[in-house]
Amino acid sequence: MPMDDGVGLVQAQTLHFDQPLSLECDATLPAYDLAYETYGSLNADASNAILICHALSGDHHAAGRYSPEDRKPGWWDNCIGPGRPIDTNRYFVVCSNNLGGCGGSTGPASTNPATSRPWGPDFPMVTVGDWVRSQARLAEALGISCWHAVIGGSLGGMQALEWSIRYPDRIRRAVVVAAAPKLSAQNIAFNEIARHAIRSDPRFHDGRYLEHDAVPGVGLRLARMLGHITYLSDDGMRARFGRDRRADQARFNFDVEFEIESYLRYQGESFVNRFDANTYLLMTKALDYFDPAQAAGDDLAAALAPASARFLVVAFSSDWRFSPKRSREIVQALLANKKQVSYLEIESDFGHDAFLMPIPLYHRALSGFLEAPA
Amino acid sequence: MPMDDGVGLVQAQTLHFDQPLSLECDATLPAYDLAYETYGSLNADASNAILICHALSGDHHAAGRYSPEDRKPGWWDNCIGPGRPIDTNRYFVVCSNNLGGCGGSTGPASTNPATSRPWGPDFPMVTVGDWVRSQARLAEALGISCWHAVIGGSLGGMQALEWSIRYPDRIRRAVVVAAAPKLSAQNIAFNEIARHAIRSDPRFHDGRYLEHDAVPGVGLRLARMLGHITYLSDDGMRARFGRDRRADQARFNFDVEFEIESYLRYQGESFVNRFDANTYLLMTKALDYFDPAQAAGDDLAAALAPASARFLVVAFSSDWRFSPKRSREIVQALLANKKQVSYLEIESDFGHDAFLMPIPLYHRALSGFLEAPA
Repeated sequence: MPMDDGVGLVQAQTLHFDQPLSLECDATLPAYDLAYETYGSLNADASNAILICHALSGDHHAAGRYSPEDRKPGWWDNCIGPGRPIDTNRYFVVCSNNLGGCGGSTGPASTNPATSRPWGPDFPMVTVGDWVRSQARLAEALGISCWHAVIGGSLGGMQALEWSIRYPDRIRRAVVVAAAPKLSAQNIAFNEIARHAIRSDPRFHDGRYLEHDAVPGVGLRLARMLGHITYLSDDGMRARFGRDRRADQARFNFDVEFEIESYLRYQGESFVNRFDANTYLLMTKALDYFDPAQAAGDDLAAALAPASARFLVVAFSSDWRFSPKRSREIVQALLANKKQVSYLEIESDFGHDAFLMPIPLYHRALSGFLEAPA
Repeated sequence: MPMDDGVGLVQAQTLHFDQPLSLECDATLPAYDLAYETYGSLNADASNAILICHALSGDHHAAGRYSPEDRKPGWWDNCIGPGRPIDTNRYFVVCSNNLGGCGGSTGPASTNPATSRPWGPDFPMVTVGDWVRSQARLAEALGISCWHAVIGGSLGGMQALEWSIRYPDRIRRAVVVAAAPKLSAQNIAFNEIARHAIRSDPRFHDGRYLEHDAVPGVGLRLARMLGHITYLSDDGMRARFGRDRRADQARFNFDVEFEIESYLRYQGESFVNRFDANTYLLMTKALDYFDPAQAAGDDLAAALAPASARFLVVAFSSDWRFSPKRSREIVQALLANKKQVSYLEIESDFGHDAFLMPIPLYHRALSGFLEAPA
């Protein structure tokens, strides 16, 4: 464990919810578990709680390590901890695994009580709205009636936005990073190809791969490789990998030849070992469906009218998955409502991945926004 | 057949070459066929011949129809024909299927004389340089000692560029459309995922699928769907498909839901029926390897020094596969050599696909450039 160990050792917890949850797809989950972690201490009036919402392939393990031998800390460890932008000396930080996930919350790999077999493809489709409602119940269980802030990047930012609309009285600040008010056709196209790759893998078995003791690894690997193209910028890839070859000469075969190929294959491989294919399908559909303006006549400003939180919207110059233009749509809709919003567009070569990076300006903006009175 | 039938009915031809061809990968093809088509008539001094080079998934059928019932004409029919920008009343137009292709030229699906079985994965890797040398032999066979112009879009533009370097005395004009002097890491990444999809399809059988009477359709379909994302622009997709659903309501299942999904699946499916997977692998590697500057110390200007053709370089504003920036690299290198070059950057929402579209400004520039004295 490094010297500067942030929140140090952490433990995941699980809460069981017995009250049925009606989902937007019209199905009802009779009961479910939410896995979550907390860092820091809740103060006496429960006014210092921050909810972190995770993105497509994230989970509730946002900071710290499970053991001193742990090779990697949580996915946002550089941002959460004592003295870090989301300062655990001041805030009580909560991060839960989304419903339908594969990190411990009830999802497709969990047992369906109706059949005593894994849910698999029968797990109902969950939406950003469903997640937010399940997180609201978690807040109640933890005694948090109003979040100091709800924070998320990418799909996590969409959850923060949804929180601000759905529960305006229960969120004082919303931080929406590298997100969009809805997916573009191109975004949906990438998701569709990822899903197609998974679902056409012969080992997918119509989603019942667990019962066949199989893993649709070919499809999941392709989905992840494709995802990584959209997380990095062209310039960032050029800077990091260029056209560097692993050998001096052209090989004239199909082995890994360029560094970028090696990177993608590695990323694909390690994802297969940690992520569930049905969960990936669900998360990408939740992304496709997210469109808070739809119910308000395709008017985003009208959709955001109920919000009362203070907003920080952050975008990164080289993010082409959810470009600054998409963030500015959110900002414009907030301004049209005369909401309090700060917008920060950060120069970065990291592409969409920038939202996970310890970029000083980004981190300073985050801590400043959290400290300022709401 | 429509009223304005362009070049009308055409027939593919095949030339057999007995002289062995040494390839850049060090293998030698003992003999090979090139399939090609011609439109218009060669004049007495053979000075009016134009070579069209095709892109990744193209072939030698650039214009006309094979029968009156033919549903679709050749891939660049809107540009080639009597009175069209590449005017067959004036020019003798030649288009050949690249070596390694699947349109009639010798390729992986051809019989390997050494084994009497399909070449399959044993077909040697071919490069842009190899193609140009095989096209030079075709020119000799047709009695064309100097092309009026060599024209290509995308991978075809790379061939035009290679022609200008390798055979400066045999090409008076080079038209390089929507191309790049070499692939970026992101370009290579897309190719790698496409190859990975094909090669990890269980029906690929290590490239010997023909002998197994199989088609790696899952992988080829994914490769094509992915390709189409890179051919269209984000804005163009939005204009054409938006987030339009095929049904009013969210389905909450994995059926085709958005129009863009339907489009991609259709494109993927029809590609499987017409294209060979091993050819796709070869063509993407030829793209990855293309880098004429490499042999000149990574100095593109030095690489282009031998060229004596007049150049027209065309790029399209929304092309993010080979963006205008990449075309300007070519233009700068030509200007550094004081070569004659015209550069045209066209506003278009069509993305990379724009190079196939009948955009008036583009077509006028093309015909004007071809008519002007070299």
